[in-house]
Amino acid sequence: MTNAKFVNDAEIIEFVLSNTRIFNTEQFTDTSALRVEEIGDGNINFVYRITNDQQSVIVKQALPYVRIIGEGWPLSLDRIRIEAQCLKEEGAWAADYVPAVYYFDLARSAFIMQDIGDHENLRHALIARRSLPELGRHLGEFLAETLFHTSDFYLDTYQKKAAVADYINPDLCKITEELFFLDPFCDHERNSVNPPLREAAEALWQDEALKIEAAKLKYHFMNDAQALLHADLHSGSVFVKAEGTQVIDPEFAFYGPMSFDIGSIIGNLLLNFAGQPGLEGAAEEKQDYREYLLNTIDTLWATFCSRFKTLVSEQCKDPVFASAGFVDAFIANTWRESMGYAGTELIRRTIGLAHVADLDCIEDIDVRAVSEKFALDLGSALIKQRQVIKSPQVLKALIQAI
Amino acid sequence: MTNAKFVNDAEIIEFVLSNTRIFNTEQFTDTSALRVEEIGDGNINFVYRITNDQQSVIVKQALPYVRIIGEGWPLSLDRIRIEAQCLKEEGAWAADYVPAVYYFDLARSAFIMQDIGDHENLRHALIARRSLPELGRHLGEFLAETLFHTSDFYLDTYQKKAAVADYINPDLCKITEELFFLDPFCDHERNSVNPPLREAAEALWQDEALKIEAAKLKYHFMNDAQALLHADLHSGSVFVKAEGTQVIDPEFAFYGPMSFDIGSIIGNLLLNFAGQPGLEGAAEEKQDYREYLLNTIDTLWATFCSRFKTLVSEQCKDPVFASAGFVDAFIANTWRESMGYAGTELIRRTIGLAHVADLDCIEDIDVRAVSEKFALDLGSALIKQRQVIKSPQVLKALIQAI
Repeated sequence: MTNAKFVNDAEIIEFVLSNTRIFNTEQFTDTSALRVEEIGDGNINFVYRITNDQQSVIVKQALPYVRIIGEGWPLSLDRIRIEAQCLKEEGAWAADYVPAVYYFDLARSAFIMQDIGDHENLRHALIARRSLPELGRHLGEFLAETLFHTSDFYLDTYQKKAAVADYINPDLCKITEELFFLDPFCDHERNSVNPPLREAAEALWQDEALKIEAAKLKYHFMNDAQALLHADLHSGSVFVKAEGTQVIDPEFAFYGPMSFDIGSIIGNLLLNFAGQPGLEGAAEEKQDYREYLLNTIDTLWATFCSRFKTLVSEQCKDPVFASAGFVDAFIANTWRESMGYAGTELIRRTIGLAHVADLDCIEDIDVRAVSEKFALDLGSALIKQRQVIKSPQVLKALIQAI
Repeated sequence: MTNAKFVNDAEIIEFVLSNTRIFNTEQFTDTSALRVEEIGDGNINFVYRITNDQQSVIVKQALPYVRIIGEGWPLSLDRIRIEAQCLKEEGAWAADYVPAVYYFDLARSAFIMQDIGDHENLRHALIARRSLPELGRHLGEFLAETLFHTSDFYLDTYQKKAAVADYINPDLCKITEELFFLDPFCDHERNSVNPPLREAAEALWQDEALKIEAAKLKYHFMNDAQALLHADLHSGSVFVKAEGTQVIDPEFAFYGPMSFDIGSIIGNLLLNFAGQPGLEGAAEEKQDYREYLLNTIDTLWATFCSRFKTLVSEQCKDPVFASAGFVDAFIANTWRESMGYAGTELIRRTIGLAHVADLDCIEDIDVRAVSEKFALDLGSALIKQRQVIKSPQVLKALIQAI
């Protein structure tokens, strides 16, 4: 299948015209006006927009290796099957928050989906301090709907176990197992540490209590097959506009602990919180945006709890799991574990391989190190103290204390 | 495949002669002396011994339905593939404690294995108060070897995830999900309650705190794919002689929490403990045997901990999981969760569908109810207080208090 890559724009256009009716309706019979743009970030996959200036679709194609590295770093093509399938599954439960998938082609390792080009990458939006009043509610709904409907709260035991097997995704899981849970907790050659932060990083690598708790989170990540996760839910996987939120790129999808998805996105909001002092703008703006970020976490969690409980009461068929006492305990534990995963995201984005613009765009490395130190301290505290961080209010108090 | 059942002894003998060399070595060329006996308990599968009085083997065959019910209760034939494969896997790590598998035949849904006919069922041995000084050590070694080598402590992430998918076993898991975690915690029609125990059972069904903890154990059982479990490790699956222990019948095998296997067998030792006052014999004998049972639990757990830690230090390739601090925390948590599963075994064997002879052979129903009440009280306490039962010593103190 290494020959499946589209060799030119004509092939891509033909692929779209053969497999969708987007451009060959009666209104748009002139397909000669179609143009192809490559719009991917260029690291791993190819992403094309096909447009005639009135309508457009996206084609995403995977190669059996990492694009920027080449054939020396092979990567299973099964990830594109998983991504297309996961988008469809998420779309079944949270259609407002994921692009529609029109067609998946196994031989081409490619699928065609809705263009969400009128949305902006959430990371850029947060750095630009956009007002996104619906973001917390949208993310809370997306998480509650997708995680509930793929778990034992909703599926019968046969469906659930078959789904676990169907989403086994070792190539992509391995990346997370290493980049989240191994590298940042030791002096790994893949790490990238801002020189003024070196001392703090070295202290973290000696923190045995932290390393034990991070190991527990890794074990939990690898073993606890609760629900179909997006599993790469950082700000770069979320696209926003004033009234809308779209979650894309679930190629890491697998069955894991719900708290990993929830913690990942909360960790990204906290990364932006950490970066605020060093980003451009007036002090008051920064303070206001920090409050907005914490309120967004509040709203995300309140929405998740409320929607998840409603779904259990209306749709859970298992009488053991439907009991209010169990659901309350489950949700409370999910929050605490989410705090741990938010902590691993804060740490790995600060001293690991893959950094975030919320911190890295602070040009002065000493100013940046102040924000990075905050991210490390908060991340460590979230991981070590997660059992006592019982609510967003306790999280706020912890942030104040740091 | 519904026609695969052996129609007569000649077919069974032919199956053995064609697929093993047990009887057609030079010494034993006279195969006309071979006899076939049906030795299964008769509930689900067919088990045959093929013998010439000098040597013997066992043939186990599954049918696509429950034998005592008939075609009205279908059961996946995949269970016999899982059982044979699991026996081989266990045999690779704990050869002393499982019968050798010589041949598996998919079309016949049958496999041929070593005869352990010189061993006695552990449940009968415990009821007869046999001295089995090696039992605790053997079970501890069996558990440490099989659970370690099928977990993320030993397997790489690709092997582990493939194994999880390979052992998906929904038909058999569903039986456990219902008989352990649903029926005994409500007034279910499948339950069987000794009339003098009815009041205690009804009180248990109203215990909301207990039901929440049992629901957590069920969720953990269904989601936490730590290791390849035997998953039906009661006294009837263990066969013993003075110096030997054999663990058979892993048709329920799947990837689940290690604590389920450990808790199941400890629960069975505690069921015998509960039955002692009502079983025949002198008071002193009963007291001595109760001490023997608790000492066996001590030894089982001490052996498990010691062997598991040695295996981690010698064979764990993952530096995150190999840290002593993490292993200690993991083992401590495994003990506490095992206490919970021991509790569910005590309760489901007392008021659920499938009882045990350790209690049921007490003929006087009022005398039996005393033992049963102890089993219910201990089971409830183990489930609700498992987070504070930190060692076998705390377990002993709890038993004293009840």
